[in-house]
Amino acid sequence: MKALFYDGSLRLLHDYARPVPSKGEALIRVLVAAVCGTDLEVGKGYKSFRGVPGHEFVGVVESVNEADPSLVGKRVTGEINCGCGLCGRCSSGMEKHCNERTTLGIDRRDGAFAEYLTLPARNLWEIPAGLPDEEAVFIEPLAAVYEVLEQCHVRPGDTVLVLGDGPVGLLVSFVVARTGARVVVWGRHEEKLRVARAQNIGTRNGDDAAYREKFDIVVEATGTAEGFNVAVDHAEARGTIIVKSTVAGRGEIDLSRLVVDEITVVGSRCGPFAPAISALARRLIDVRPLISAVFPFDRALEAFARTEEKGVIKVLLDLRQP
Amino acid sequence: MKALFYDGSLRLLHDYARPVPSKGEALIRVLVAAVCGTDLEVGKGYKSFRGVPGHEFVGVVESVNEADPSLVGKRVTGEINCGCGLCGRCSSGMEKHCNERTTLGIDRRDGAFAEYLTLPARNLWEIPAGLPDEEAVFIEPLAAVYEVLEQCHVRPGDTVLVLGDGPVGLLVSFVVARTGARVVVWGRHEEKLRVARAQNIGTRNGDDAAYREKFDIVVEATGTAEGFNVAVDHAEARGTIIVKSTVAGRGEIDLSRLVVDEITVVGSRCGPFAPAISALARRLIDVRPLISAVFPFDRALEAFARTEEKGVIKVLLDLRQP
Repeated sequence: MKALFYDGSLRLLHDYARPVPSKGEALIRVLVAAVCGTDLEVGKGYKSFRGVPGHEFVGVVESVNEADPSLVGKRVTGEINCGCGLCGRCSSGMEKHCNERTTLGIDRRDGAFAEYLTLPARNLWEIPAGLPDEEAVFIEPLAAVYEVLEQCHVRPGDTVLVLGDGPVGLLVSFVVARTGARVVVWGRHEEKLRVARAQNIGTRNGDDAAYREKFDIVVEATGTAEGFNVAVDHAEARGTIIVKSTVAGRGEIDLSRLVVDEITVVGSRCGPFAPAISALARRLIDVRPLISAVFPFDRALEAFARTEEKGVIKVLLDLRQP
Repeated sequence: MKALFYDGSLRLLHDYARPVPSKGEALIRVLVAAVCGTDLEVGKGYKSFRGVPGHEFVGVVESVNEADPSLVGKRVTGEINCGCGLCGRCSSGMEKHCNERTTLGIDRRDGAFAEYLTLPARNLWEIPAGLPDEEAVFIEPLAAVYEVLEQCHVRPGDTVLVLGDGPVGLLVSFVVARTGARVVVWGRHEEKLRVARAQNIGTRNGDDAAYREKFDIVVEATGTAEGFNVAVDHAEARGTIIVKSTVAGRGEIDLSRLVVDEITVVGSRCGPFAPAISALARRLIDVRPLISAVFPFDRALEAFARTEEKGVIKVLLDLRQP
């Protein structure tokens, strides 16, 4: 099968072996996949990954191996962490924190930038009929954004600064603004900030060094190590910083500022699929303005390069055409 | 009056001007003061402080300036942050986070290593009659330790690692162990760890590089920048790290570990005086094993030096003798 393969450099292979589902797994034919900032990090050595990257996808179940046969033919997306299913974390609903877990396209498990992938059947979520592939492919990142509301009680009277105008930052602003809180997106790309303003969400240009406003909650979604110190600058005393960026490097942080201002920092990763699917199906959240380009899979390398271009928010890979 | 004075170096002056209480303030004759790790940081340039250090004290109110006259003659200690009394933070009970605040012996306000100090009358707490000066001087640091329980719900089934066997670490272990949670103190000084063990609290030698146990809650009280990364090593997925250390330097931190393991980090500073006074008066907490030495004030420089010696927990300054 065709697959994008990374082993220090990224290339498109035409004869990569089609994966075989293990017991309890499903074989899924990929329809649409999306390129995420984490994929770019993977391409810089994050998790020392070797294999097929990609973890945001929509596909159709082709077959299952000792799993619910009614899944075959269903249009699905899937949770990306695959726990051992046996340890204390797995049995207490924390499979995504299992020490033995593999992660689709990120850690010891081939991912979605290929014609086929496998996942445990228990990881799969059926996609409602009315939701187009190009929007359903946002379920995984939108779930990760809903994790912010799982972890932090955002009150209607709160002020929230979202650092970063990439897809995560913009999705956070969409989700949090709907709680009733006042949201400001901070970013350096006018063409991306415009997407937030179109939803009546406030924006601030990050190049404005004189900007000093403090917020009850700051969501760090810049994808950079420097973003954290900007978050501390803008956090109210006793405020909360939610960190969404998984940056490959390490950052210099002045911990004494967290102590003196009694700031809470919350690391935030993958999140709940049910509210993400529901929000897209009900059109509570409209992700269409985030789609910058759709590439046929044969031009996947071009899609990767496009993702790093200025002003580009989200690039999709279309595997539906032969 | 006699006063310990810092302006780049520390020296004992005999003719420092006795402070004059402003409107709403009390003049307090110091009986006993204690040397804190923050005082040592102040002596290394923390907050660029110039003046009289010291913020842990017991004293007697000598006079008041337009404040409750019944305070005169009372034995007191005091909260160390002095807000403007006018801003939003002050009027919402967050005076300790006032942007204009001064802090006793730490930030633009002469402190307790002197025969007299001044504080706003509203900062003062009367000390119960049965509580000796040498124990009451622990009210301020014990209040800061109770802040941990204000900020973090410690459940009886939780496991808690306390990093650091200094006075803060040991006090945290005393306070948290009484909640019913299992507590382990991690430190490098056998003679200090012994104080925890005497209260049936578990200990671990920090030089044991093979030690890998994970805890629901980790309290970082090493007073070092390196302590934070040790805390991350020992924090369970979805666990909480409470940072008590105000280190002068900046630390290199791998933020991606906080995100991947969804760890919450809570900065923690000064805390509530009422439970601290009550715990000492009821002997719920016994601080006597923490007193390593008591020096007459004329030997204050020696007391500072002693505080940095191996195995020393807490050094007191006695100003009661002439």
